[in-house]
Amino acid sequence: MAEYDAQIASTSKGEGLYAADLSPGWSVGGGLNGGYLLAVIGNAIRQEVPDKPDPISISAYYLGPGTPGPATVSTNVRRRGGSVATVAAELWQGDGEAAGPRITALASYGDLDTLGSDVRTTAEEFSLPPVEECAARRLVTPDPDQPSMSDRFELRFPPEQMGWLQGEPTGRGEFAGWFRLADGREPDVISLLSVVDLLPPVTFDLGMPGWAPTMELTVHVRAKPAPGWLKVRHSTRNVAGGMFEEDAEVWDSAGRLVAQSRQLARQPRPQ
Amino acid sequence: MAEYDAQIASTSKGEGLYAADLSPGWSVGGGLNGGYLLAVIGNAIRQEVPDKPDPISISAYYLGPGTPGPATVSTNVRRRGGSVATVAAELWQGDGEAAGPRITALASYGDLDTLGSDVRTTAEEFSLPPVEECAARRLVTPDPDQPSMSDRFELRFPPEQMGWLQGEPTGRGEFAGWFRLADGREPDVISLLSVVDLLPPVTFDLGMPGWAPTMELTVHVRAKPAPGWLKVRHSTRNVAGGMFEEDAEVWDSAGRLVAQSRQLARQPRPQ
Repeated sequence: MAEYDAQIASTSKGEGLYAADLSPGWSVGGGLNGGYLLAVIGNAIRQEVPDKPDPISISAYYLGPGTPGPATVSTNVRRRGGSVATVAAELWQGDGEAAGPRITALASYGDLDTLGSDVRTTAEEFSLPPVEECAARRLVTPDPDQPSMSDRFELRFPPEQMGWLQGEPTGRGEFAGWFRLADGREPDVISLLSVVDLLPPVTFDLGMPGWAPTMELTVHVRAKPAPGWLKVRHSTRNVAGGMFEEDAEVWDSAGRLVAQSRQLARQPRPQ
Repeated sequence: MAEYDAQIASTSKGEGLYAADLSPGWSVGGGLNGGYLLAVIGNAIRQEVPDKPDPISISAYYLGPGTPGPATVSTNVRRRGGSVATVAAELWQGDGEAAGPRITALASYGDLDTLGSDVRTTAEEFSLPPVEECAARRLVTPDPDQPSMSDRFELRFPPEQMGWLQGEPTGRGEFAGWFRLADGREPDVISLLSVVDLLPPVTFDLGMPGWAPTMELTVHVRAKPAPGWLKVRHSTRNVAGGMFEEDAEVWDSAGRLVAQSRQLARQPRPQ
């Protein structure tokens, strides 16, 4: 089993509850990465509605940081329709007075294989230099005593996008790069829930370094991804009022737009 | 009181429940308009967290059509934070075995006046001909015996965007026009929740007429709108697998991007 599958696994405890053990390997900034946590939730929902295996849309509201260790995902089916089941889910951690939901989410699941095969995507696939010409950079400062999120996946950016590491952001508010999980684990509909939240915040490219906590993240999974490297692009158009929106799109190796997401995040505080 | 305010009103019944009377004036396609219903929910949430009066983000999953008449909005605060409260809410209709949630939603509310005043919007405001040069069209076939959604607001499109009415869509998958509510009711943060879902589906502009039911709609309210006409644009980039995403942006009379939304909708069936 690839490490990713072990890290997003959970066990049914009955009555819609799933027990998970959150991995320290996804630590970043103030807690565990939000895309990782979303896949843990998405994977539990999938067990609750096994005849509807694919997340079509999932919306998560982040209430507090997730931390390594035990967690419970509660699920509550709101409607079982013919083609789609809609489920409310929460990720809980803590005991006693410290217990509380860290994420609350809604999702609609279905079977992507049964949907229409008509594709009229007008979005244009963005181009990147070949993988081997892109820089593999560790984006989180490594601490030899701690696991690093950078070891969970490979992310390769065109050299001209890496100026922010030397204090020279492009000012465009955009990142695009190649992505694949560790162990050569191929992408699937669940891993796409992580992929949309693993690039550095686009505010880095606007000269605003620092942790940018997600408030809300909605992902639409539009097709099952083909095996191979994914192309991921993040961009923002509206940094205002202490917040910014970040759109992500994910294209698979077959040239299909397989996922679209938008999140609302808090602007990093000046450091 | 403007008709819009009367139509989105609800009365607290205690324990987080709010009683509403859904207006037949918002009938369209298979039920009541989704943007109208979202404002009913949004208005009830606002009563539940009065110190956090502004929707910052709201995500709604549409489970079944809303119909004119009594409805209950249930609210459940998931977290009261210092700057933001996050609330789960559902719109229920029906009695006995027919009772069920029509919409399930999550929202984060805050006070937009207390947020940062920094604005670095890189999105460019789209241009439209002056209001008086745009066509005021009734978009729903009027039935003299029935109330029409077209009487609830004014929507004016540049003449070159109206080709779909004569079977000549532009094929771009985009609509942009001027908007204001009936009675000259000025826009506010709640009415923005409706505005993002009141244009015809962009699929009309792709030569796919027909009802396009919303599955999921997330709205980010980024600023309080200034009085006057709003500019609204809808567009899609990915019609595939029987679904399409529709992005909306709303600009106010002061030239500020006040709301951004994305929805996932079912593609109209061939007629």
